[in-house]
Amino acid sequence: MKDAADLNVRLGPPPTFADVLSAAQRIDGIAVRTPLVECPALNARVNGRVFLKLESLQRTGAFKFRGAVNRISRLADEGVGAVIAYSTGNHGQAIATAARIFGLQATIVMPKDAPKSKIARAQDAGATIRFYDRSTESREEIAARICADQGGVIVPPGDDPKIIAGQGTAALEAVQDLQELGLMADVLLTPCGGGGLSAGCATVLDAVSRDTELFAVEPVAFNDTERSLVADERVGIPDRTARSICDALLAPIPAELPFSINRRHLAGVLTVTDAEVLSAMRFALEEMKVLIEPGGAVALAAVRAGRVALNGRTAIVMCSGGNVDAELIARAFE
Amino acid sequence: MKDAADLNVRLGPPPTFADVLSAAQRIDGIAVRTPLVECPALNARVNGRVFLKLESLQRTGAFKFRGAVNRISRLADEGVGAVIAYSTGNHGQAIATAARIFGLQATIVMPKDAPKSKIARAQDAGATIRFYDRSTESREEIAARICADQGGVIVPPGDDPKIIAGQGTAALEAVQDLQELGLMADVLLTPCGGGGLSAGCATVLDAVSRDTELFAVEPVAFNDTERSLVADERVGIPDRTARSICDALLAPIPAELPFSINRRHLAGVLTVTDAEVLSAMRFALEEMKVLIEPGGAVALAAVRAGRVALNGRTAIVMCSGGNVDAELIARAFE
Repeated sequence: MKDAADLNVRLGPPPTFADVLSAAQRIDGIAVRTPLVECPALNARVNGRVFLKLESLQRTGAFKFRGAVNRISRLADEGVGAVIAYSTGNHGQAIATAARIFGLQATIVMPKDAPKSKIARAQDAGATIRFYDRSTESREEIAARICADQGGVIVPPGDDPKIIAGQGTAALEAVQDLQELGLMADVLLTPCGGGGLSAGCATVLDAVSRDTELFAVEPVAFNDTERSLVADERVGIPDRTARSICDALLAPIPAELPFSINRRHLAGVLTVTDAEVLSAMRFALEEMKVLIEPGGAVALAAVRAGRVALNGRTAIVMCSGGNVDAELIARAFE
Repeated sequence: MKDAADLNVRLGPPPTFADVLSAAQRIDGIAVRTPLVECPALNARVNGRVFLKLESLQRTGAFKFRGAVNRISRLADEGVGAVIAYSTGNHGQAIATAARIFGLQATIVMPKDAPKSKIARAQDAGATIRFYDRSTESREEIAARICADQGGVIVPPGDDPKIIAGQGTAALEAVQDLQELGLMADVLLTPCGGGGLSAGCATVLDAVSRDTELFAVEPVAFNDTERSLVADERVGIPDRTARSICDALLAPIPAELPFSINRRHLAGVLTVTDAEVLSAMRFALEEMKVLIEPGGAVALAAVRAGRVALNGRTAIVMCSGGNVDAELIARAFE
């Protein structure tokens, strides 16, 4: 990547495995060490062993809390008093909660069509909410303006080495838990929006499980990482009117730093339809008794749809969040 | 208890802690070591630390699988070829699945108003289903008749030391997981139908966590264990028309062997209403992202309703199952 040096200057260098281990220490006792649960109801169907990493059980209901704690705890150490985040919901909720824990003031820039539950929770955590229109306004510009007016540090959802290192702890725990069972993952599938979780997973696998193939999974209408891998550079989705129920994965273009990592490590990108996602959500609730949000269920949907052939192999499936409005639960059960 | 000796002759002696440890070895790698998840959303509300033991994530969706594997694996060792079980659902499902694993033929005697999902799953596991009418027929008599006609061993849901020892492994794991966090449970609350899970918990706590108070929780309309403790002998609920949404807890009278254990170990019995149960189910799904069935949610309902004062103490809450029909999920979200 010809401008990697420039990227490293602007956003910091990509995280190392040591950064993930350091993040694991930061979040210990604050984030939940979420369970890795085998899915016998799926094993026979896909001819493999499938283990779900239930980040839906994470504090604030999504993996985002890991990166938020790693980043904000360090800002608190540096004496920073305020943070600003732009977010489809889960990142904002994580930043709001982590900021409260470490005594920082948080302002969250949120699309006005974000799920009501996510808006309410960020407010409950004491954050100031600034709404914006997804189709006409730039969340980055709004955040920059607040930052210029009021001070504070912008915490982006992906373009931050400490955020990526924090997300990597989810993969670290999953690999460790499999090792305790005497197993190694042949495949790890993870939902992919801006790419931060995937980049964190890549950082871990590259260090401690190099034979594990990493697949990012996207909604078919928001396959910006797939398109970017094909183009070998970051490209956005062309359709500005694209829609998906996967509200957590609607980033129109990969984040820079995560993509610089993902392009080197991904075995591939898989895509799923909204119908496959709803089916996966229903399966998770009926068979596994867990609530997974649409964006959190894309990797499970890809496995169930046979997008990757397991042939007796072992898979870790990141179920990255569980924040679903009641109406959508009803829709999944229609 | 004046007829304890007689009871021991008929049903076997109560299980010891060594029996629970032996059961833990039997189920290792077959049953799920379910996660113990702290519930931050509840801690502040109840002024304590609440840890949920998610047996809803157990294979077959309920703790019953533990006792079933412990019992049936031993019957298989003895060369027994068939088992008969009577069950409100979860026990039957567990017996059917464990029987298939160990190569036994299973017949399940099930009330015809059991949740459809539970009936379907027992059938999917290859069991023969014999339906009965809860208000006019005796499930025990039907099971005895099948046994006389076709041979095989009846596996009761509670009156069996190997079943109780198996259920105790749920408490054993929870106590061990807390120990790893440097904590001890001041209180353990468990749903109570026939009393097998409660008796298994008592067996464990008595051996390794004697300062932990054990509370059984019942639906207020099916408080047979509460009434029996007051009477100091097993008594049934007087109202034959009593109803509750807690389909897993509708045993009209405590099972003998579990009650002989529970009467000596319970700190008390708590009762909850169906409305409190629905509220707890909704809380679990919205805040914890887990699906818990009505009978599995009574202990959580009791904690949320403040039935036991925590005052800074630590509680283990058994969430004993997650098998809910889609209609009831919708009802919890009305």
